[in-house]
Amino acid sequence: MKLPGKIAIMGGGSWATAIAKIVLAQAESINWYMRRDDRIEEFKRLGHNPAYLTSVRFDIKNINFSSDINKVVKESDTLIFVTPSPYLKSHLKKLKTKIKDKFIVTAIKGIVPDENLIVSDYFHQVYGVPEENIAVIAGPCHAEEVALERLSYLTIGCKDIDKAKIFSRQLAGHYIKTSVSQDVAGIEYASVLKNIYAISAGICSGLKYGDNFQAVLISNAIQEMNRFLNTVHPVERSIDDSAYLGDLLVTSYSNFSRNRVFGTMIGKGYSVKSAQIEMEMIAEGYYGTKCIKELNKHLHVNMPIVDAVYNILYERISPMIEIKLLTDSFR
Amino acid sequence: MKLPGKIAIMGGGSWATAIAKIVLAQAESINWYMRRDDRIEEFKRLGHNPAYLTSVRFDIKNINFSSDINKVVKESDTLIFVTPSPYLKSHLKKLKTKIKDKFIVTAIKGIVPDENLIVSDYFHQVYGVPEENIAVIAGPCHAEEVALERLSYLTIGCKDIDKAKIFSRQLAGHYIKTSVSQDVAGIEYASVLKNIYAISAGICSGLKYGDNFQAVLISNAIQEMNRFLNTVHPVERSIDDSAYLGDLLVTSYSNFSRNRVFGTMIGKGYSVKSAQIEMEMIAEGYYGTKCIKELNKHLHVNMPIVDAVYNILYERISPMIEIKLLTDSFR
Repeated sequence: MKLPGKIAIMGGGSWATAIAKIVLAQAESINWYMRRDDRIEEFKRLGHNPAYLTSVRFDIKNINFSSDINKVVKESDTLIFVTPSPYLKSHLKKLKTKIKDKFIVTAIKGIVPDENLIVSDYFHQVYGVPEENIAVIAGPCHAEEVALERLSYLTIGCKDIDKAKIFSRQLAGHYIKTSVSQDVAGIEYASVLKNIYAISAGICSGLKYGDNFQAVLISNAIQEMNRFLNTVHPVERSIDDSAYLGDLLVTSYSNFSRNRVFGTMIGKGYSVKSAQIEMEMIAEGYYGTKCIKELNKHLHVNMPIVDAVYNILYERISPMIEIKLLTDSFR
Repeated sequence: MKLPGKIAIMGGGSWATAIAKIVLAQAESINWYMRRDDRIEEFKRLGHNPAYLTSVRFDIKNINFSSDINKVVKESDTLIFVTPSPYLKSHLKKLKTKIKDKFIVTAIKGIVPDENLIVSDYFHQVYGVPEENIAVIAGPCHAEEVALERLSYLTIGCKDIDKAKIFSRQLAGHYIKTSVSQDVAGIEYASVLKNIYAISAGICSGLKYGDNFQAVLISNAIQEMNRFLNTVHPVERSIDDSAYLGDLLVTSYSNFSRNRVFGTMIGKGYSVKSAQIEMEMIAEGYYGTKCIKELNKHLHVNMPIVDAVYNILYERISPMIEIKLLTDSFR
């Protein structure tokens, strides 16, 4: 296995575009899988992604675009998956090529719907990729700030810490600092949970709770995350590291966060449907909420924030009532 | 000792005014010590503090104002000190009345200059107040949001947990929730440190670091705070509780924070002097930085953020250089 070898970006959204920019700071060329041929054509014509991070210019001759997932997989050693989690399965269904001898990196923040598996477990269990060949990229890192080349920190998680180090060196650059971790599952669950907590922060903001309360909410959220991770994947970790707390903070406090924006609309009284139509985007935490809620049926972790968001989004309980109840559980 | 008995507010700033509002939601009347007679007269005439939180109306007949600290102390059972820490000593110098049989509450976020003592230790060591009669009030709580009656959480720390509970019930109300703790020193040091970290957040913002980096900064700050507290006052505590992490978040992320604003000006290139003149306010973290730096000469805790802020504010090292070095210590 060549590591990183030829790198492929799998997906065409803003985070995919940011990662392509990061990788191309060192790699001479990359493969790039995008579903839509018209998008690829427009990308080539314009020299930038037509839909996301349009300010980031690419040297098109260094990118081999394709809408044929099998071709891209065959021609690549490292596959970085960056599709929204709800679409991952449909992309992979088209796969006729084995991927178990590839280095699989997930930059997907979500759980595979219906399966209720984090992405690394999905690749391992369904596609037979060995755990030591699966890595995860975690923030705190908004794509929009990568576009601006603002200093950002990434954590690369892989059971095989040497592979994590090799891959992390591929990403490090003058505005990207990297560190490594073996806590793949913990980092993945954290990136699912933070989207839910960002929705809750938005809901509270929409309901006109202030900064004082937001700080209490986030303090309780990181403790809830810690309880869940210690149950679902009990390893030694410091929950205040940037891959956990940092990622929660950037998602919950930043205006770039679509999960937070989605939550704000819900807090202001929009229905889930109308908020989704208005945003023209998927707030991944919406799906994550259902997945974590279902997982937790067997784990029984005390998760008042996830419960409240679930009740608001899926049980149509009034945000005002639900958050009022939540405030009583905090300290 | 009557607890809380007759309550006095000692100080006339915005946080003092917010606490007076909170106390008067339950207490029929309070005593209120302010240094300046002209302020008292204007307060009485206007029905609100002429200089701070001017939107908060008070029923003047329930307030016994006085600029005579000895009179106020004599007529009160519980004294809530809310002066800026640099002025505490000069207020107390006027004292001819014993205070060791009073219940002393500090809502001061700072260290007593020259002495390098947190306020609770100062009252205990210099004024002989028994530790079980000293309490601390901690946020996360911006005075401005108390004025707006936005839900806020306060933690009351006291070695004697029963006294903490009695006093906390005096503060709780429809927009104030309270919890109690025995970690008086930890809470006090945390409230000193968070001001320093808020200055660092401001400096980085002034230097145009983005949200991604802020999240990494705060993640590293809470870990640095934890290291310091575990050395200076090693007791069992959860650093992610709202009295520690929450207070750090509200101060570092909120635009109400004068420490953050002060830091932003420094990051933009203002000198300490010109930033202070422009703000017409004391950023308590400025003094806190020097105190913690001096305390840490004996404790030897690894505190890269406090060191960087100290070097910028007191050694006149360029913020750009100092923060660049700091970024290398983070992960």
